[in-house]
Amino acid sequence: MRNILILLCLAIANLSFSQVERIEPSYWWAGMKQTELELLVYGNNINDLQPEFSGNITIKKVVKVENPNYLFVTIDTDGITPGTYTLSFKKGRKTVDSSDYEFKPRRENSRQRKGFDSSDVIYLLMPDRFANGNPSNDSTTETIEKANRDDQGGRHGGDIQGIIDHLDYINELGATTLWSTPLTLDNEKVYSYHGYASSDLYKIDPRYGSNEDFAKLSAELHQRDMKHIMDFVPNHWGLSHWLIQDLPSSDWIHYWEGGENGFKRSNYIQTTQFDPYASEIDAKGCMDGWFDYTMPDMNENNPMLINYLVQNAIWWIESGDLDGIRVDTYPYNDKEGITKWVTRVMEEYPDFNIMGEIFMHETAHIAYWQKDSEIGAIQGFNSNLPTVMDFPLHDILPQVFKEDEQHWGDGVYRVYDHLTKDFLYPNINNLLIKMGNHDVNRINQEFEGDVDNYKLALTLIMTLRGIPQIYYGDEIGMMGDKGKGDGDIRRDFPGGWAGDEQNAFTSNGRTDTQNEYFDFTKKLLNWRKGQKAVHFGKTLHFSPINNVYVYFRYLQNDPDETVMVVLNNSDKDQKIDLERFSEGIQGYEKGLDIISGKEYEMNQPLEIGAKTGLVFELR
Amino acid sequence: MRNILILLCLAIANLSFSQVERIEPSYWWAGMKQTELELLVYGNNINDLQPEFSGNITIKKVVKVENPNYLFVTIDTDGITPGTYTLSFKKGRKTVDSSDYEFKPRRENSRQRKGFDSSDVIYLLMPDRFANGNPSNDSTTETIEKANRDDQGGRHGGDIQGIIDHLDYINELGATTLWSTPLTLDNEKVYSYHGYASSDLYKIDPRYGSNEDFAKLSAELHQRDMKHIMDFVPNHWGLSHWLIQDLPSSDWIHYWEGGENGFKRSNYIQTTQFDPYASEIDAKGCMDGWFDYTMPDMNENNPMLINYLVQNAIWWIESGDLDGIRVDTYPYNDKEGITKWVTRVMEEYPDFNIMGEIFMHETAHIAYWQKDSEIGAIQGFNSNLPTVMDFPLHDILPQVFKEDEQHWGDGVYRVYDHLTKDFLYPNINNLLIKMGNHDVNRINQEFEGDVDNYKLALTLIMTLRGIPQIYYGDEIGMMGDKGKGDGDIRRDFPGGWAGDEQNAFTSNGRTDTQNEYFDFTKKLLNWRKGQKAVHFGKTLHFSPINNVYVYFRYLQNDPDETVMVVLNNSDKDQKIDLERFSEGIQGYEKGLDIISGKEYEMNQPLEIGAKTGLVFELR
Repeated sequence: MRNILILLCLAIANLSFSQVERIEPSYWWAGMKQTELELLVYGNNINDLQPEFSGNITIKKVVKVENPNYLFVTIDTDGITPGTYTLSFKKGRKTVDSSDYEFKPRRENSRQRKGFDSSDVIYLLMPDRFANGNPSNDSTTETIEKANRDDQGGRHGGDIQGIIDHLDYINELGATTLWSTPLTLDNEKVYSYHGYASSDLYKIDPRYGSNEDFAKLSAELHQRDMKHIMDFVPNHWGLSHWLIQDLPSSDWIHYWEGGENGFKRSNYIQTTQFDPYASEIDAKGCMDGWFDYTMPDMNENNPMLINYLVQNAIWWIESGDLDGIRVDTYPYNDKEGITKWVTRVMEEYPDFNIMGEIFMHETAHIAYWQKDSEIGAIQGFNSNLPTVMDFPLHDILPQVFKEDEQHWGDGVYRVYDHLTKDFLYPNINNLLIKMGNHDVNRINQEFEGDVDNYKLALTLIMTLRGIPQIYYGDEIGMMGDKGKGDGDIRRDFPGGWAGDEQNAFTSNGRTDTQNEYFDFTKKLLNWRKGQKAVHFGKTLHFSPINNVYVYFRYLQNDPDETVMVVLNNSDKDQKIDLERFSEGIQGYEKGLDIISGKEYEMNQPLEIGAKTGLVFELR
Repeated sequence: MRNILILLCLAIANLSFSQVERIEPSYWWAGMKQTELELLVYGNNINDLQPEFSGNITIKKVVKVENPNYLFVTIDTDGITPGTYTLSFKKGRKTVDSSDYEFKPRRENSRQRKGFDSSDVIYLLMPDRFANGNPSNDSTTETIEKANRDDQGGRHGGDIQGIIDHLDYINELGATTLWSTPLTLDNEKVYSYHGYASSDLYKIDPRYGSNEDFAKLSAELHQRDMKHIMDFVPNHWGLSHWLIQDLPSSDWIHYWEGGENGFKRSNYIQTTQFDPYASEIDAKGCMDGWFDYTMPDMNENNPMLINYLVQNAIWWIESGDLDGIRVDTYPYNDKEGITKWVTRVMEEYPDFNIMGEIFMHETAHIAYWQKDSEIGAIQGFNSNLPTVMDFPLHDILPQVFKEDEQHWGDGVYRVYDHLTKDFLYPNINNLLIKMGNHDVNRINQEFEGDVDNYKLALTLIMTLRGIPQIYYGDEIGMMGDKGKGDGDIRRDFPGGWAGDEQNAFTSNGRTDTQNEYFDFTKKLLNWRKGQKAVHFGKTLHFSPINNVYVYFRYLQNDPDETVMVVLNNSDKDQKIDLERFSEGIQGYEKGLDIISGKEYEMNQPLEIGAKTGLVFELR
């Protein structure tokens, strides 16, 4: 009897020691193209357990790693029926733990989901700084950093409900796609609002809402015929991520000797990714260095990590019903690893879109990273990444529009010249183009509040090839100086918080100047929605003379869609002989300027005011 | 009898009317690889004559063109024996004219002549401004513009004899190759000294000397183991060229309606050569526009013109015994035409070298033009041009060396970053690199006479990949401001003219400062002659820290040739831990700085003065 009691006690002890705390992903779908699923099972000393699935689910492989708190269980989901199965864990003959594991039915046409593209306009916002829809979650017991709106670098309380509450505003503006900076848990002690140091890749930060809120955001967007892009951060996770705190094996992150926690800051020299002369120490310094003190650099050469990231992305696409992913700091990732990641995600969703933040300043350097790039091919590299970002265009915008023509090549000629490099891109439609984002001076700061320059720049961005993106607040002339800290370029949207002095979400709440910004933006973005030639058409441009740039967007099979853009970037009114542009005008006699609503004669000299843009539908 | 007299008179009249004035080329060689030769025969109304060659020379084709003053006679020179043949012209049965036509024996190994390459250092000079070796030819009866040394844009009297007289100076300096701007006749009325508006592509300007002097220059160079590059201008000829004055047919040049002589200035938008969006009017404006009022734009789409230019180039290579050609304004030429030209010249001399002036400012744009470029291949283009020019490197030099590091990426980091684009070039050794030329501010002007910056820049240029070129006078610190006119950057070399106040060709004649420039240049250039790793080696570089750039040139199969360059571009003395560079130092313990002659310990921290360069041979 005493022996039996001892055995019972040991059994209970054993059970409590081997309890499974987490399974990731926590559920999955039936009917996926990629049928192999690798479950990460986590719990104290669980690696001597034998997993077993109910039903017809085959366990193909069980992998133990350095850390006994992990088991990686690979199963075959081919032909699986939706439903809840039992995953039990045995020790010898005894079942010591068991969990329900659900395979949900897959959303209809999930595989065929169509990603964002150049028919879209993206609205980028930072959720902590846009609108506070639910003040009760500004601080939570489970998250460390509490709300403090007085702190430029603190949590301000914005959330998913706040975004949902103002989707009509974004929709009215004419943006078709939302990109929010990361919404997953970032439980660092301080400076956590940006969300780029994730503490849990499967969980929405409770200060923003729940995973259900995230899915609801997609649903609300889709209801408005809008799209949802998730910000994804494979290169680095937060130091407080539970997995980082108890690594499966040391090769999940890049360690450097010396620094605390293995920290050594990245040298940020992304060019080592292709520089034929780069030293190994510089390449390692970029690829293995940490993006920041709280951001351990993940080792994408570890296939288990890549698998984890692939499944995590698919999990969000399915559960969050996504239309696209934006990948942070793309060239900081190990090149081969991130290529495997993007390839597998795109294999699951062939019509999806993923854009990488290629924060570089040379067209050739950026073109290198686009799928099927001839530049990449020089080094035998094909990234498989569909969309890259035209940072060099962004780089020149302040100079372009603030500069009158002093020398040949000044002013708007810089744009013309920039586009001459477009042949380096395999797909010029899949270029994100923008006037700013959350990492740089706000465009209206650059323009010192000059609304004419804003209008010219917006007109350019909305009519060039590529996928335009605007940054929340630019549409009301918001200022922000990176020199004063990131918080200054990430100010709260006025009206997003109860009790705000001003509510710029409504026409009445906006000042006259803000309405001038907003109304112009709204007109242009809503007009763009129907412009196939702007979305997918070819470009024909003419070398700027006197700081006036004229270009056409046209469809070869439908000339009736031809759009002609005239940007007078000079400080002078001008009268322009249109004869020079006959190759683009193609005999059309009238042009309706969609901005003024005025019709112009195309066979007459064109009078255009200083610092004015005209956007003609040719008729 | 009267009838006979009349007939006789008519015959005489006929004979005088049909006299052949010119045959180009005026002689040729036996044993050429390309055996077809097209003779341009010129004379008043000669196009009804029948040409006939003595010996076994077959006339394959006789072509008449619009202008009756031309006949194009294609002959087959295959198997021809060297010697002088008779080329007679008949009208019916009568021989109305005849000339000797010589096929010279070809110089031994002429076909295998080896062009300049990255083991060379090129010395670029303007012959009118370098040295006046023969004052009796400063003005001649047959040339219009007379010498006037007081005129910045006039003829100053420099000549080939002046160059020959100072070859020992150039040789002592350590340059191995001479590139003179054009020496062929430029008989424009004014502003003819630059030579880029040729009046006769087969004749040296008598103010420079004779065709024999040109060949003598090559011989004198070769005697000193030096090379000779000719400046070639296919894109435009001088308005006063005899052929332009009496065109074979209107399609030898590009006409534009309106302007005098068909003049319309080029828009200089070279990017239209590959810009996928370029309008036809812009492309035509660049390609067909004239480079200047006195420079009609040649139509390289005309195969007769290309043939003329190919033969002209071969003629100079053979007669002038050349080691290379530099082609002016390369991208202004019709792309397909100039490709045929370079392909045929290189077919005749497979080891030769030709460099094109690709005066563009983006690496990708320049890489487009190099033989076997992957960038060109994007558009199905292969230029076949072996050597292009690294203008972007030149563009950044003033900023690089005048700038101390304020922000990341400033100063010498710009060079590091520039080189990360080198993978765009199919052949990085065939890049001309330079601190200046006859079209831009002199480098010492940019540096405001700062000799330390000159030394750093020269050290860079002499140790990077590529073919370094220096511009006459830079080696004595000569100044020149393009803003004051081209003449200011093309000043006379002091001592080149009898009676000059100063003779900077000799050590005694130079000021102390000039000797500092000269001695440094001489030391570096002469050292470079024996450095295989610098000529053809690989590069390994390290991201600059604190404005100090460290790189290595090395041969994989001969590590004993490793060169390590340390450029401290900052205003501070620095002590550098060399451990970081161990990948390049490869265990070597000593480094001989070839500038100071001092030996350094490579396993000790390196002390380096502000604004100092060290060039180590590792031992």
